[in-house]
Amino acid sequence: MNIGPYSIEDYMHLVKSFHGNIAPGLIIGGFMVDLAMKELPNDILFDAISETQTCLPDAIQLLTPCTIGNGWVKVMDFGRYALCLFDKYQGDGVRVFLDPEKLENWPEIKTWFFKLKPKKEQDPIILRDRIIDAGPDILTVQHVTVDKAFLGKKGKGAIGTCPSCGEAYPIKDGTVCLACQGGSPYKRKLPNEKLGTKTTFKVIQ
Amino acid sequence: MNIGPYSIEDYMHLVKSFHGNIAPGLIIGGFMVDLAMKELPNDILFDAISETQTCLPDAIQLLTPCTIGNGWVKVMDFGRYALCLFDKYQGDGVRVFLDPEKLENWPEIKTWFFKLKPKKEQDPIILRDRIIDAGPDILTVQHVTVDKAFLGKKGKGAIGTCPSCGEAYPIKDGTVCLACQGGSPYKRKLPNEKLGTKTTFKVIQ
Repeated sequence: MNIGPYSIEDYMHLVKSFHGNIAPGLIIGGFMVDLAMKELPNDILFDAISETQTCLPDAIQLLTPCTIGNGWVKVMDFGRYALCLFDKYQGDGVRVFLDPEKLENWPEIKTWFFKLKPKKEQDPIILRDRIIDAGPDILTVQHVTVDKAFLGKKGKGAIGTCPSCGEAYPIKDGTVCLACQGGSPYKRKLPNEKLGTKTTFKVIQ
Repeated sequence: MNIGPYSIEDYMHLVKSFHGNIAPGLIIGGFMVDLAMKELPNDILFDAISETQTCLPDAIQLLTPCTIGNGWVKVMDFGRYALCLFDKYQGDGVRVFLDPEKLENWPEIKTWFFKLKPKKEQDPIILRDRIIDAGPDILTVQHVTVDKAFLGKKGKGAIGTCPSCGEAYPIKDGTVCLACQGGSPYKRKLPNEKLGTKTTFKVIQ
């Protein structure tokens, strides 16, 4: 059994190097992407949706051309362990989800997924083995069409300089950038800059 | 000049293999991450913010331990070409942004960044060379503190089965999952499943 072009062993190495650890969700995610790819026509350009932000986006990024930064995978965080690969122009695609009904045959996986026991009472090696044993058996495939409203990229449009922070931003966002409109996560600002030439104090929005 | 542990050449190979093409924004992003890492203390665990979803998250994912799937990088889409690496417990960190004022010395980069000419009138090879020539010269560093409200991970909490779609979801989201509450991007549903055993028709929310 392979995951995409990789042996399971090689895929786990890849996961460790990118994601930091061989998370159970990423092994399941590998089988999910693999299954979805097999169900897709070969000759289409596809985009991806991850219905959770936990683990699954990394399986998609490792096994498909879609990344967060190239905009071909979007996280729509419904909290469901599901993904969809779909024709980027037509919207027709394949959705794969981890199916609770099918977990009845896999008690270790069910215990982990539904958090039925504290983590320290679960054996991560047995869990990993069961996930590999199960492979696609705990998954369900659905053929879907993604609504046109979700197809394509929204362009940023014209770029201007925010009169508040002095940084570039999409003019369509308003007269100042979204951070200066109140979304900024920064609370403290220090003007020191070890590199570069700017010495002017800037309020960090 | 290097980008993280890579020569610029090796970094561009890595970018091509992950992101699909050697986007100008990803080369700049490489210098941004490199600069931020050099300004951070060596002995801290850090999280990351990307203030745009375009390109920059991939530079962070390639050059730091932070990925979207492991939750250590968050996209806060203010439309600013800026990132922040910060102590995940204390919030103290470094913000780096592409500085419009500094682009005055780099007309090709300014033209591309502010979209002053149609893409087909710009030379991608010259642009790439100028970006590499400029390196960190077009960037500004700020020392910031991320507000406590943005630190740490929000756990999913208890997991239940959505009575509408039958899939697992975080119970704190409500009596049905967020997709069944109306956010679903799917408009067409087909019950056919080539693999697995389920034959019951499921409404896809």
